[in-house]
Amino acid sequence: MSSASPKATNIVWHQASVDRDARAEQRGHRSAILWFTGLSGAGKSTLANAVNQALFERGLATYVLDGDNIRHGLCRDLGFSDADREENIRRIGEVAKLFLDSGVIVLTAFVSPFRADRDKARALVGEGDFLEIFCSADLSVCEERDTKGLYAKARAGDIKEFTGISSPYEAPEHPELSVDTGAGELETCVNEVVSALESRGIIPAQA
Amino acid sequence: MSSASPKATNIVWHQASVDRDARAEQRGHRSAILWFTGLSGAGKSTLANAVNQALFERGLATYVLDGDNIRHGLCRDLGFSDADREENIRRIGEVAKLFLDSGVIVLTAFVSPFRADRDKARALVGEGDFLEIFCSADLSVCEERDTKGLYAKARAGDIKEFTGISSPYEAPEHPELSVDTGAGELETCVNEVVSALESRGIIPAQA
Repeated sequence: MSSASPKATNIVWHQASVDRDARAEQRGHRSAILWFTGLSGAGKSTLANAVNQALFERGLATYVLDGDNIRHGLCRDLGFSDADREENIRRIGEVAKLFLDSGVIVLTAFVSPFRADRDKARALVGEGDFLEIFCSADLSVCEERDTKGLYAKARAGDIKEFTGISSPYEAPEHPELSVDTGAGELETCVNEVVSALESRGIIPAQA
Repeated sequence: MSSASPKATNIVWHQASVDRDARAEQRGHRSAILWFTGLSGAGKSTLANAVNQALFERGLATYVLDGDNIRHGLCRDLGFSDADREENIRRIGEVAKLFLDSGVIVLTAFVSPFRADRDKARALVGEGDFLEIFCSADLSVCEERDTKGLYAKARAGDIKEFTGISSPYEAPEHPELSVDTGAGELETCVNEVVSALESRGIIPAQA
């Protein structure tokens, strides 16, 4: 803080700012966007929340963006048309960028089926700030799980343009990490993500 | 983390979650939304950034949302029509709620001239989570400062519906805090905001 300010009506106030580097230094870790992508039922949200929990237990600043806190809030005005899906992912990318700037490791868990939309989110931030994490459970596994009953509805035609059934899923070509959320155990998948953060120097390696 | 997961294709993964209370306990402070409102030139962004700096120096988790990081990002698709201004404030309220949920003290610095819009943002969160902070510099002071030259343009008719000149500013009726950003010194104003956070138990009082 400045020690003195001019006593005039037309005060010129100094604009303070706390940047990412300052927060990283204080917290002992860098921020990043962990962008989980995969089919419905692939385990994106579960994995993201488990990673979030593991990082929280290390005292790191983290947050998960997923359907639960986005679709009924920021994106409540959006439906499922092509334009609305694109806008949905655009907003999520912008919000993730704000969390990144705030020094938080932000985990996004959305199907985000289109490469172009994911690439736009990636382009918003710097090299190394965006880690695309492909949850690779394949369609047969996801459909067998059908935890929300959505595949059955999609097969019955009750849901239109459902990713994997009636709308394409464009798998990442060069994701920073691909995790086998089909047959892998949760703990193994979590460790793979956490190791990737350590090896990239985003978080300190645990002793 | 669970110590074991079932080894089956149709794995039921436990959904972990880290809530606000857990983060507050770990960080030693609660989260809150500090919603700064006032005329253009009243010093909202400067005050918010100075408070942010002061809280950062205490090691607290904070972030500022203002025109710089919102208008060119999340709200780049919005103009200045009534509907777009309302949507702008709606999105800011929703993003502030996400930061609140993540355990961060989030400071928003926007003119936000309409009571109804501010009240909607307040209604998104719980009692005590939203502190409306009125930056009370009056029009004559703001127009005299005219740091961005906007008042001159508004008087010349080059900017339409400019708050205070050709569009109303509805001052808060019962703000949690009113700060004299017209004649007050920055350091005094910062201390008033920080004291309010201490007295409400959001942050610990400094020894």
